[in-house]
Amino acid sequence: MDTIRVSPTSGSTAVAGMIAGRMRESRYVELEAADAGAVNEAIKAVAIARGYLKLDGIDIVVVPSFVEVGIDERKRSSLRLVLEARSQSQLW
Amino acid sequence: MDTIRVSPTSGSTAVAGMIAGRMRESRYVELEAADAGAVNEAIKAVAIARGYLKLDGIDIVVVPSFVEVGIDERKRSSLRLVLEARSQSQLW
Repeated sequence: MDTIRVSPTSGSTAVAGMIAGRMRESRYVELEAADAGAVNEAIKAVAIARGYLKLDGIDIVVVPSFVEVGIDERKRSSLRLVLEARSQSQLW
Repeated sequence: MDTIRVSPTSGSTAVAGMIAGRMRESRYVELEAADAGAVNEAIKAVAIARGYLKLDGIDIVVVPSFVEVGIDERKRSSLRLVLEARSQSQLW
């Protein structure tokens, strides 16, 4: 499944809608965020998507890691956010 | 346990050290981040702390939600990031 690239102007509710759709389908989503504004937008989107998925009984956990993007001298590190589902029953 | 308030200038490695210490002790940490720079710093800190905790066999998952902070007209929403441990054996 393709990684969703989040930018500072992606719109957290739009990203939340995409996250919710994919979580329902495959219980797994990968986001990539290259700067502070994008990371903020991505994390807000997850907080919103958790609300959308409540009735489906799906909760989301985020596992962040660094990833190198670009080539040669233009390499820089970006954040990869892996989203995984856990059933809400595991919360208790 | 007290919430760690992260700011854009907290320093992600310093926050990562705090996170790692508390995760070893109690397997649970709460972060609060009020703006984009703080959210970015907090998520980078978690990515770094995951490396620190690898030898302890502890992995971290992040559960983000919104929280209202401040009083009266000065209320605004901030992000709460609950960090929970999962043992690395659960990853496979």
